[in-house]
Formats: sequence, structure tokens, C-alpha cells
Amino acid sequence: MTIDLEALYIDLHQHPELSFQEHRTAAIAAGHLRDLGLEVEEGVGGTGVVALLSNPSTDSGTEGPVVWLRADMDGLPVEEATGLPYASTARGVDPAGHDVPVMHACGHDMHVTAMIGAVERLLATRDEWSGTVVVLIQPAEEFGAGARAMLDAGILDRYPRPDIVLGQHVTPFPAGIIGVRSGTQMSASDGLTVTMHGRGGHGSRPHTTIDPVVMAAATVMRLQTITSREIDPKDVAVVTVGSIHAGLKNNIIPTEATLELSLRYPTDTMRDKVLASVERIVKAEALASGAEREPDIETLHTLPATINDEEATTRVAAALRAKLGDEAVIDPGLFTGSEDVSWFARDAGAPLVFWFWGGFDPAVFAEAVAKGRVESDIPTNHSPYFAPEIHPTIEVGVTAMETAAREFLA
Amino acid sequence: MTIDLEALYIDLHQHPELSFQEHRTAAIAAGHLRDLGLEVEEGVGGTGVVALLSNPSTDSGTEGPVVWLRADMDGLPVEEATGLPYASTARGVDPAGHDVPVMHACGHDMHVTAMIGAVERLLATRDEWSGTVVVLIQPAEEFGAGARAMLDAGILDRYPRPDIVLGQHVTPFPAGIIGVRSGTQMSASDGLTVTMHGRGGHGSRPHTTIDPVVMAAATVMRLQTITSREIDPKDVAVVTVGSIHAGLKNNIIPTEATLELSLRYPTDTMRDKVLASVERIVKAEALASGAEREPDIETLHTLPATINDEEATTRVAAALRAKLGDEAVIDPGLFTGSEDVSWFARDAGAPLVFWFWGGFDPAVFAEAVAKGRVESDIPTNHSPYFAPEIHPTIEVGVTAMETAAREFLA
Amino acid sequence: MTIDLEALYIDLHQHPELSFQEHRTAAIAAGHLRDLGLEVEEGVGGTGVVALLSNPSTDSGTEGPVVWLRADMDGLPVEEATGLPYASTARGVDPAGHDVPVMHACGHDMHVTAMIGAVERLLATRDEWSGTVVVLIQPAEEFGAGARAMLDAGILDRYPRPDIVLGQHVTPFPAGIIGVRSGTQMSASDGLTVTMHGRGGHGSRPHTTIDPVVMAAATVMRLQTITSREIDPKDVAVVTVGSIHAGLKNNIIPTEATLELSLRYPTDTMRDKVLASVERIVKAEALASGAEREPDIETLHTLPATINDEEATTRVAAALRAKLGDEAVIDPGLFTGSEDVSWFARDAGAPLVFWFWGGFDPAVFAEAVAKGRVESDIPTNHSPYFAPEIHPTIEVGVTAMETAAREFLA
Amino acid sequence: MTIDLEALYIDLHQHPELSFQEHRTAAIAAGHLRDLGLEVEEGVGGTGVVALLSNPSTDSGTEGPVVWLRADMDGLPVEEATGLPYASTARGVDPAGHDVPVMHACGHDMHVTAMIGAVERLLATRDEWSGTVVVLIQPAEEFGAGARAMLDAGILDRYPRPDIVLGQHVTPFPAGIIGVRSGTQMSASDGLTVTMHGRGGHGSRPHTTIDPVVMAAATVMRLQTITSREIDPKDVAVVTVGSIHAGLKNNIIPTEATLELSLRYPTDTMRDKVLASVERIVKAEALASGAEREPDIETLHTLPATINDEEATTRVAAALRAKLGDEAVIDPGLFTGSEDVSWFARDAGAPLVFWFWGGFDPAVFAEAVAKGRVESDIPTNHSPYFAPEIHPTIEVGVTAMETAAREFLA
Repeated sequence: MTIDLEALYIDLHQHPELSFQEHRTAAIAAGHLRDLGLEVEEGVGGTGVVALLSNPSTDSGTEGPVVWLRADMDGLPVEEATGLPYASTARGVDPAGHDVPVMHACGHDMHVTAMIGAVERLLATRDEWSGTVVVLIQPAEEFGAGARAMLDAGILDRYPRPDIVLGQHVTPFPAGIIGVRSGTQMSASDGLTVTMHGRGGHGSRPHTTIDPVVMAAATVMRLQTITSREIDPKDVAVVTVGSIHAGLKNNIIPTEATLELSLRYPTDTMRDKVLASVERIVKAEALASGAEREPDIETLHTLPATINDEEATTRVAAALRAKLGDEAVIDPGLFTGSEDVSWFARDAGAPLVFWFWGGFDPAVFAEAVAKGRVESDIPTNHSPYFAPEIHPTIEVGVTAMETAAREFLA
Repeated sequence: MTIDLEALYIDLHQHPELSFQEHRTAAIAAGHLRDLGLEVEEGVGGTGVVALLSNPSTDSGTEGPVVWLRADMDGLPVEEATGLPYASTARGVDPAGHDVPVMHACGHDMHVTAMIGAVERLLATRDEWSGTVVVLIQPAEEFGAGARAMLDAGILDRYPRPDIVLGQHVTPFPAGIIGVRSGTQMSASDGLTVTMHGRGGHGSRPHTTIDPVVMAAATVMRLQTITSREIDPKDVAVVTVGSIHAGLKNNIIPTEATLELSLRYPTDTMRDKVLASVERIVKAEALASGAEREPDIETLHTLPATINDEEATTRVAAALRAKLGDEAVIDPGLFTGSEDVSWFARDAGAPLVFWFWGGFDPAVFAEAVAKGRVESDIPTNHSPYFAPEIHPTIEVGVTAMETAAREFLA
Repeated sequence: MTIDLEALYIDLHQHPELSFQEHRTAAIAAGHLRDLGLEVEEGVGGTGVVALLSNPSTDSGTEGPVVWLRADMDGLPVEEATGLPYASTARGVDPAGHDVPVMHACGHDMHVTAMIGAVERLLATRDEWSGTVVVLIQPAEEFGAGARAMLDAGILDRYPRPDIVLGQHVTPFPAGIIGVRSGTQMSASDGLTVTMHGRGGHGSRPHTTIDPVVMAAATVMRLQTITSREIDPKDVAVVTVGSIHAGLKNNIIPTEATLELSLRYPTDTMRDKVLASVERIVKAEALASGAEREPDIETLHTLPATINDEEATTRVAAALRAKLGDEAVIDPGLFTGSEDVSWFARDAGAPLVFWFWGGFDPAVFAEAVAKGRVESDIPTNHSPYFAPEIHPTIEVGVTAMETAAREFLA
Repeated sequence: MTIDLEALYIDLHQHPELSFQEHRTAAIAAGHLRDLGLEVEEGVGGTGVVALLSNPSTDSGTEGPVVWLRADMDGLPVEEATGLPYASTARGVDPAGHDVPVMHACGHDMHVTAMIGAVERLLATRDEWSGTVVVLIQPAEEFGAGARAMLDAGILDRYPRPDIVLGQHVTPFPAGIIGVRSGTQMSASDGLTVTMHGRGGHGSRPHTTIDPVVMAAATVMRLQTITSREIDPKDVAVVTVGSIHAGLKNNIIPTEATLELSLRYPTDTMRDKVLASVERIVKAEALASGAEREPDIETLHTLPATINDEEATTRVAAALRAKLGDEAVIDPGLFTGSEDVSWFARDAGAPLVFWFWGGFDPAVFAEAVAKGRVESDIPTNHSPYFAPEIHPTIEVGVTAMETAAREFLA
């Protein structure tokens, strides 16, 4: 009667869905949660799922503490290259209307699987604790938009407000390792779309045009200097141009070029500085090309820093150490990645604890460390080679989520 | 009973079709040619049309001279911005499967229209001449592939071989002006697709990746130095990166970037030099990025120089001067644009005459010249603003083609 | 009979000398040390000065602990722009034979002044302590070469070997503040000279040349990507091109270009990575230009990380707190700057403590902090505006050096 | 009693002098001209020499036609690498005060030698012609300033005004070949100095600076796009950055960078366009860096196009063909190099004929042509390998100048 978590994981992995299109994934998760006896709402903020597990204290008769557990479920437009027997061959249509490959390259399939497993365990031990668990299966984390959408759908009004928000992310640590720290755990981030305007024309007559390809290329090169020259080498900032698109044909000089930027920084001060530098460079490079129109800079998403509450994090870390052993819990340092999980805690005014759990073969990891090749040999999240080991990753994820939740349930 | 050429032009303009997809256009052209009484073959080399007008000498009983008249008919993936009442709103699917706007931004609609008009006139005057006219309505000039496809379909074996090949192109000259020169009229050209291989990963962790966006941007900047530093300033060469594409999302560093290049040069020596420089730079920039795999460089098309036969060109120019006035025929100099029309002449071993005819309001032109703003104010071929005046452009195109043909028909 | 330290400082400030040319400075320092009664050796490793202050314990009759105190004394090729009444107008001849301005833009004049003051104080209190003080006035810290030169001159054989090596550096902190930390205090550093070989020729005929100016410019742009793309954003590394030189005349394309690089990193692993990246990029950019000869990469200097001994640093920090107040001593974090002071400790196998002391008006500092303009408003070392406040900077420097030395003298 | 022209050439070649410093060269030339019996003035416009050879017609008693013959005499800051036994090892001090190597890398030593030889011949044949010859030995052609200086010294007022101005330049053609054309023979040119302002600081703290090295490098890369993208590929324009200088030391980020540009174009329209593009790019790149001050753009020199008078050129070409054979005189096309010789003709309102004569071994040349390696194997003017064959270059230069002069002398 137990859910086959391995089968669930493989199924989700083979059927990744792009952000806000997670219909199948949401239905499967909702189905399991409903089967487990939870009260389930679907279609929250698009494709989000909320499930309520109420376990009031028989002694006091009170509701007890309210714990929000969050998992995200969207895949990415990446073509899987892991060579696994259960590798994804899925396709999807991205917001620009392009047919693209889809892959669970960030491990959200593992997040959903571990959440289902953790809920099952909490149910199995429900007489050991009391309180209220709200399970959130969130869409579109990769757009930095899904948490916002669920909150905008009014969940704070319809569900018990949290005393604590908990979330976790699978990551390229050795399986068995949990990384968590107080304070800033993940960077703030902005996603920008920059459209640079040239003047199109025939590829053989560049002098009649303002070439947006050259304009964009010069801009990309110049944007590198923000981190190389403008940010204190001791500070952490990232300026990535994740996509560049211009032109449909080799012999037509197009009219515009589009860059998509991903920016990362741990503080608001640095955010202001980096955004100002990006704007300055983009505008100046358009001027250098003689552009007749200023570039457009549009914000795709703004993610706040993921800041773990000090007291709650100390409790979670201690509980995990007690469960998994002292060596199993490390301070992973600041991550340059970003998350939208903290919107739940921020909007609710509740503390947040968000941690990472390792999913990779410790032997492979040890070898990479020995060779000084961790960065090149261990596929990172979003890589087409990203592939957590199924076991014990599922089990550790289930245990971590259950243990952390229990820490706050009476 | 005369064909309404203005209506034909507007209809074609409103329904542009991408290369090798010119089904509607070909059917319309074939219909008119058949209605005029010619023997018509469709589907030649994809969507090409060949029509035969046999007008043997009643005196000698011989076939007489064979004249091949060629027009091309494909549109381009450009979004029309002319604001004309008959502007195109058409869409198409390009070879990469993208849904794209389509426009007759190179005036091939005018070429087909003028060809139909010229054939009608030749028929009307058929007792003034004798010989054989082979009309070629060619697909996919913009791919540099349509002429090749028609030849590979065996037309040299099935139709009388030409004594002369004639073609024309509408261009941003004042209406009424014909430009033609002996020798090299248009440049040779290669279209290349360059794929640069990086290593993908999360946008917040650039150090685990080899960023193909930066690799491609550096390559674009370096490619500029071929013409700025390596080619004799007195020579003519063009290195255009007409498209650049990498990445699907701001926070994923992609695995590869694709550049499409259009190269132009009047001679084989320079072709060798430019191709070698492109290859050297592309490979070196991949090395500079630490790429783990060499870039792929694929040739999309190779177009020879369009070289007008000296004697035949002298005859055509004289005939046009006699018809249109001395001032109407100019030497336009070498064009950096390229054409695949010369494959017909090269394969047949026949002389070629290919000329340009102006399609723009002489008053607007004169004003642009006076202001020294021809390059910026007069939209060039492939511009989203390219829009020949309907009249007298059609009439001059008809007259020019008829006159040139008659020069070689007994 | 006390030395006028303000006058000494102003005199040194007005007469800065370039590395290994500190004849006047060395003579003045040696004069004072000799006047104070120390045994002085000059010309050590070029222009270095060593002075011995022996104060054996009268009780035990032993030599007591041996403390090496080090100051550096060279100026920099910077044109002073402070506008101070005592600003330098000095000139010097650099190793390339160029006549250049010279300035104490790194505060070494303050180091020498504070050292003389500290020795004077140690003498005044000599019955309160016993032991041996070796004073090192070092040349050419800015070349990363002076410490090495003094060691190569055999001072470890001729002088009592140290139990501890102490040094200090004036820095843009508020006056009164001392910054010191255990472990890595300053980065390792390499100075490289890169010579890129082109082919010269006439400025109007670039195609007959291989332009080293373009080659060097492309290389500078590409070198930015080491820190922006290849180094973990959470790590600290700096790749600075401090000088670029090519060409003598606008209309001659030169045969070569020279770049001087300053590289910084806290660890050997990162050093290997950055050096490999620099070499890869420099070579690839030469290939991209079609260079006929590989670039030459020469190491100007290699500086190890400045690593403070944990136990000794704890003692120094405690002594300074006791003397100056708890708030006066901070952990300044890792500096990306580098020093050659650690060669003395490394060669001797002795612990090192090296600290920073502030020299800038606290009010100005507080205003800059309030405005978030510390980086732009407070001139950093090597800036033409670098100008420590004379008081209390001298006094704090004297006290800090005396206090730290006394901590180790019995 | 004949002058040993080979010895003269070798002597001049071994003692090149920088622009406006040609004291020895001028004295030698003046000495020979005086020995030949001409009336000589020295120190004209700095180091210029003017010599008058008056040979009035005995028949008519009139002065006869006035012919100005011009040669230039300055060397260049290039280190000779020819390996010739008479190679220069000279040094000089350039305007910036730098000690630099000096070489006759542009062949002006040959110009002076041929001029002395031609005057000697004209004297030897003085009863075959009548008229007035004014010999101009000009300084500082390489600064584009010597002709201007001589004119500003009033030579038009003190000497008979010319009916024709003649000049010649040795060039990498096969010896025996003369190249001359009517109309624009050499391009107009501007020399610019661009100073870009950053903010200096310590090499380890780039974020406190505005790095002018990166600013200048980005500018150099962007300047390439003027010719690659903004100028009609069929037009001739050159944008060369002949020198780049910034910084004195690897670990100091300097406050400014200096670029020296050489620009070439055949027409004023293109001059305006290129100058505007340079200014636009330089300013925009400063903005992209966040520079606090606009760059300074200073004009070093402005040279007009060298335009040969049509009628006079036809006469000279015919005379040279008659003397040297038809094949010896070619149309060399437009040169992208520039000259200040035309100031003499422009100020005097007289026609100009300026031609090139070859100085290189025809066999070597033929081999380079056969291998398609002329550009790389034949050293161009300003190359450190530039080395005309002594014979017959001197003889052809003498004959050409004498023949052209005689064409205009009665």
C-alpha cells in the first residue's frame, strides 16, 4: 500500500513539463495527496496544488503549529543528454512559441517525489505529533513566478497561515549530505530582457544598416566587465547572458537583437549597482552603434534573496544532525542561484528554512575532488547531464523533509 | 484580354512565400503562362516553372536563336514595415521550423510580374521576330539553391539549350534607370553556418560551464577585423553575421551558439582568403574559450560571381539605350550582392546578361542624393521598408526584358 | 632630542624614489637608526637597510626572543594629484628607461616614519623588555622583489633568526582602526609581461600587416572573461591589465604589443587555474590574428599569499585591543592586494603577523559610508589622490608596531 | 666630378633623422646643391632646403616655365630589421621625449638621392632646355607638417611661383616600373590622438577605479566596425590605431589611455562620415565604462587627397613611356597612403603630378606574385624590412624626375 517512490520519480522524470504547463505533474501529485487522505485544491495560481493535512492535538484540542512544506515541479527547455534509460525525450512549446526539448534538469521531479514520501511518513506517524501541514506543489519556479502566482491566488486567506515555511533542493553534493546555513542562503536575482534596435537590410550592404548583431556582441563583451572590473572581487555577483537571438537568415541584417540576462547578488546595494551598470552599458553600446532608438530593458522577474531564519535554521540543522549524523550537515556557503520560495515566507511574515540535499554518488564525487575536477566533472543543475542517483537521494530527501517538519510540529 | 499586371503584382506582394515553398506563386505564374499559350512544366526542381514559347522562322524553317529568360519568385522572412495598403501580413515556417513573418523584401514579386508582362508583349509581336524563348520562374534564389535545383532536374536535357541567358533585378535606383555592366556585375558569395560548442549549466554558476554566448560574441567582434585589417582597403569584401542564436532561457547557459554568415567577394582569390580567415578566427575563439570541441562550419550555399558577357552586354546596353534614352542606362559598378542566375549560363556554356532596374520615386531619390542620405533614406533590398513604386516600375521591367530578348531573337 | 616624525614624513613624501633606487630614503633611515645607537648595515640586497638592537636580559644573560620588524620604502610611478602643500613633484627613470613621475602612492613613507618612531620608543623603554630587534627597511616591495633580494644577500646567516616577523601597512581605513586577521590576509599574486607579435607596416595598408594593437585589444577584452565566467563567483580572483603599450606613431602599424598583468588569488589551486586561462587566451588571440609567432609570457614576480600565524595573530590582536580599545581592532577580511613580506617569515620558518592601520579622516570616512561612496570617494593605495592624514596616522603606526613588538619581547 | 649617388644613398640610409630634426640630411643635400651651382636657402620651415636653378631662354630672354621639384627627407621611429650591411642603428628622441630607433623605412633617403641626381642631369643638359627649376627638400612629411611649414615660411613670395609641381615616391613595385594616374592618386588622411580618461587605483582593487585599459581595448575593437559595417564595401577607407599606450606598471590601474589613429579616405564626404563615427564610438565607449570625463580627440594633422592634374599627368605619363618603354608605366590605382606634397600645388594654384617608382627586385617580385604572397613577402613602406634595391632604383628615380621636369621646361 506504500507509494512506489522510485516509479513515481522515473515517471515524472520522463514527463517533464515547462513552467506553468505542469498539468500532468500536478494531477499526479494531487492524486497521490488525495489518495493519502489530504484535502487537495488544484489549479492554484495556474497549475499549483495545495493540500491540507490537519492533525489537531487531541490533548489541547488546538490546531497546533502550522507548517508549510513546499516543493516545485517545473522542467526546463534543455535536451537531456544523460543517456539514462529513463531519460526524457519530451518536447514542449516555450512562451515564444518555439518547439523545444524539455528535461527535469533542475531536479524538481525529485522534489515532488520526496514531498509525497514525506507526507506519507508524516501520516504514518501522525500520532507522534500534532499540528497542521500545508503542502504546496508550486509551478514555474524557473520563471521566478510560481510562488507569486499562488500567493496572488489568495492562499494566505484560504489556508492556515504558517508558523514556519520549509523547502529543499537537490544539488550536486554527495548523496547523504545536507547543506544549510543561517542568513543569506541564495542570492537575489533579476531576469532581464534587453532588446537592441538596429536597422535591417541586405547582408551585402552593411553600410545601409545599423547591425544589431554587432551591437549585441559588443554588449555581451562589455557586460563581462561588470564583474571583472566594477564589483569588489570579494563580493559575489553574476551577470549571465543566457540567450542571444537575432536574425533569421544569413544574408539579411536583422532589425533587432534580443539578450536575456540573469543577474545575481546577495544584497540590494549590489543589485542597484549591477542594474545601473547593465543599463549604462546597454545604452552606451547602442550609442556606439549609432542606434536610432534606445534599447528596451524589461524585467522578466525579480527574486529576493533566500534568507534563512537564524533560530529556525539552528533547530533544523540540529534535528538533521541528530537524525543523519554530525558529518551529514554542512554549511554550503552562499549560493549564487536564486529561488522564489521566500515569497511564501515574506508574504506570511513567517521564518523560512531552505536547504540543499546531495544527490550524487559519493565515490564519483570523491574522485572528482581528488582530481580537482568537481566543477567540470559533476554536472550542475540546469546541465543536460544533471542526473541525481535515485537512491539514496529519494530516501534522504524524504527523511530531511519529514525531520524538519517534525521539528516544528508539537 | 490583357493581364492586369498591377493586380498581379499586388496579389503576389500580399502572398509572399518562403524559398522552395512558392506553391501559390508558381501556380499563378504557370497559369498565366499557360493562358498565354505557352507549354508549361511545373514542379521543376521543387516549385520551379519552365515555359516554352516556340516561334520558328517561317522563312528559314529553323528554330532560330534560343533565349532563356529567368525570374525568381521567393520571399524572405522579414516583417513588412512599409505601411502600404497592400503590405504583407503573411507568415511561414522556416527550415528551422520557426513560424516567421514573410515579405517580398527583395522584389521578386516584381520580377515575376515583369516576366509575365514581357512574355505577353513578345507574343503580341511574334511576327516581328523568330526563335525560341524558354521562360524560367525559379524558386529559392534567396537560398542560392533554386537555379541549381532546376538544373539538377535536367532542364538542359529537356529544353533547347540557350544561346543567351537574360535576367533582371529591381533595385533602389530611380525608376526609369537601368544599370548594367560588362564583367563582374555581382559578387561571389558563400553562406556559412557556424556552430560553436560550449558546455551548458546554470546561469548562476558560469564557472562550471563554457559559455557559448560569450564565445560567439567574441567571434562576431573578431570577424569584423577580416575586412577592417586583412583585406586590401581597395578590394571589396563583406563579412556579415546575419543571425546569431543561443539559449532558450535567461538562467540557463546553453551548450552551443549558432552564427550564420554571409560572405561576399568578387574573386576566387579573395574567397579563399576570407574563408581561411573565418575558419582561423572561429577556431581560435573556441580555443580562447577553452571549448572542448571544435566549432562546426557548414556551407549553406556557394554562389559564383555573376559575370556579364562583354559582347552580349554591349548589345543589350545599346538596345536599352535606343529604347529608353542614353541617360537611362548606367554602369552601376560591382554589386556586393550575389545571385544564382549565373548557374544557368555556366552549366549551359552560354553568355549571360543580368541587369538592374530602378523602382523608386526619382523625386524622393533626388532629395536623398541632395541631402547625402541615399544610404539611410532609400530602403535597400531585404529591408522591411523595401517598396518599389508600382508604376512605372512594372512597365520599365517589362520593356527592359522584352527589349533585351528581342535583341537576340532574329 | 626626539626625532621630528612629521618633518621626516613630509621629507620622505616629497622625495619618493622608485623601486631599488631608494638611495636617499635608505640613507635617511639608516642615519636615524645609527643616531639612535643601532648597529646599521646599508646596501643590503640593493638599497636595503638592516639595523640591530640588542637588549639581552640582564637577569638570564640570554639573548632573549628575536623579533624582526619590517618596513618597505619605495615609491611608485604615479603623478601625485593630492594638491597637498607637500605633494611630490619628483621624477624618476623606470626600468624601461622612461622618465616618469614618482609618488609615495602606497604610503611606504608612512611605514618608514612609523618604524623609526617605534624603534625610538623601544629604546626609550628598553629596561622594560629584553630580546633582540632586527629592523628591516626593505627596497622594491612594489616589484615584489626587495624581500627576496635582502634574503638572497644572506641576512638569515648574518643576523639572529627571527622568532616572529612583524609588518604593517597604512590603508584607507579611518585613522585609529587596525585591521588584522588569522590565516590568509593578502592574496598571492603574479605579475606577467605578455608580448604579442604581429607584423608591422604602413598604417594605410593594414592587409600587409598583422595588427598587434587589435590583437592586444581583443586579448584585453577576453581576459575579462576569466573572472566573469571561469572563476566561481564566490571565490576571489583579480585579472588586471595594468599597462598596454604598442606603437610609436599613428601611421605605422607596430610589430608588437606589450601587456602587463597583475593577477591575484588566495590559493595555489586558483593560481594554477588563472595562469592556465591567461595563457590559453593569450595564445588563442594570437592565433585568431594569424600571428606568425607565439606570444611571450614572462613572469615579473611571484608573490605568495600573506598568511598570518593563528597563535601569534591572536596575541597581537589582543595586545592591540588592550592598548587601543576593543573597537579599534577589526577583521578586515581577505585583501586582494599582495605583499612580499612573507618571504622573510617563510625563509626563516617563523610565524608572521602583518596588519593594516587606517590613515584617513574618520569624519570623511563616515560621510562616504553614509553616502555609500567609500569605493569612489576614498582614494585607495596607488591612486594619485592617496594621502593619509599625518596625525594621528604616524602616532597609531608607531604605537601599533611598538605594541606588537613588545608582545614578543620578554 | 659626378656625385657618387650610391655612396650618398648609403650615407643617408645609415643616418636617418626624425621629422623636423633632419639637420644632417638637409646640410648634405644643401651642400651638394650648392656645389652644383644652385642658389640655396636652408632652414626653411624648420630644416627645409630650397634651391634655385635659373636657366632663362637665351632666345626669348624670358624666365621660361617654372617647375617645382619636391623631395622629402625624414626617417621614422622604426628599428631596422633588413640585415643590410648599411642598415641603420640610429636612435632619436621623439616628440614625447622617448629615445627611439630611427630608420629610413619610407625611402625618403632614396627621394633625396634621386633629386640630387636629377638636378645634376638637368645641369648637364641645360642648353637643351630653358626655364626655372625650384628644388624643395622638405622636412617632416611623416608628420604631414613639413610642406605646410615651408609654405608658412613664405616660399611662394620669395621664389618664382610654379607652373607645375612634381614629386615622386619609391614603393614596393618591381624596379623599373612607374605608377601614375590622373585624379586621386593618394587618399586624404587625418591623424588623431584620442585620450580616454578613467580613474586610477590599485591593480588589486578594480572596483575602485574606472579602468582605461579596458575602455581603450573596447574602443579599438569597436573602431574596426567603421570599415566593416559603416562604409560601403566598394569604397576605400582605413581606420588604423597605430599606437595605444596606458599604464606604467602591472599593479597600478592608470588614469588614462592614449590611442593614435590614422584615418584614410579618398573624399571629403567619407572623411566627414568616418570622423563622425570615430567620435561617436570613442564617446560611447567612455560612457560604457562610466567615465567621469569625455575623451579628448585632438587632430595631429590633416592631409588633403593627392590629386593629379589630368592634362599634366597625361603629359608626364607619355614622356615616361617614351623614355622607359610602354610597359614601364602603369596605373597603380588609388593609394590608401597620404602625402602632404599637394599643399605646394594647392597653395600655388598649380597642377600637380606625383608618381611612384618601383624599387624592388623584379625576380623576387615575380616569385611573390606567382605564390600569391606579394602582401606578405614584399615589405611595404614603414616596415622594418623595407629596403629598395640600390640599383637600378636610383637610376630610374633620377631618370623619371629629369624626364618629367624636362616635359615642362621649354
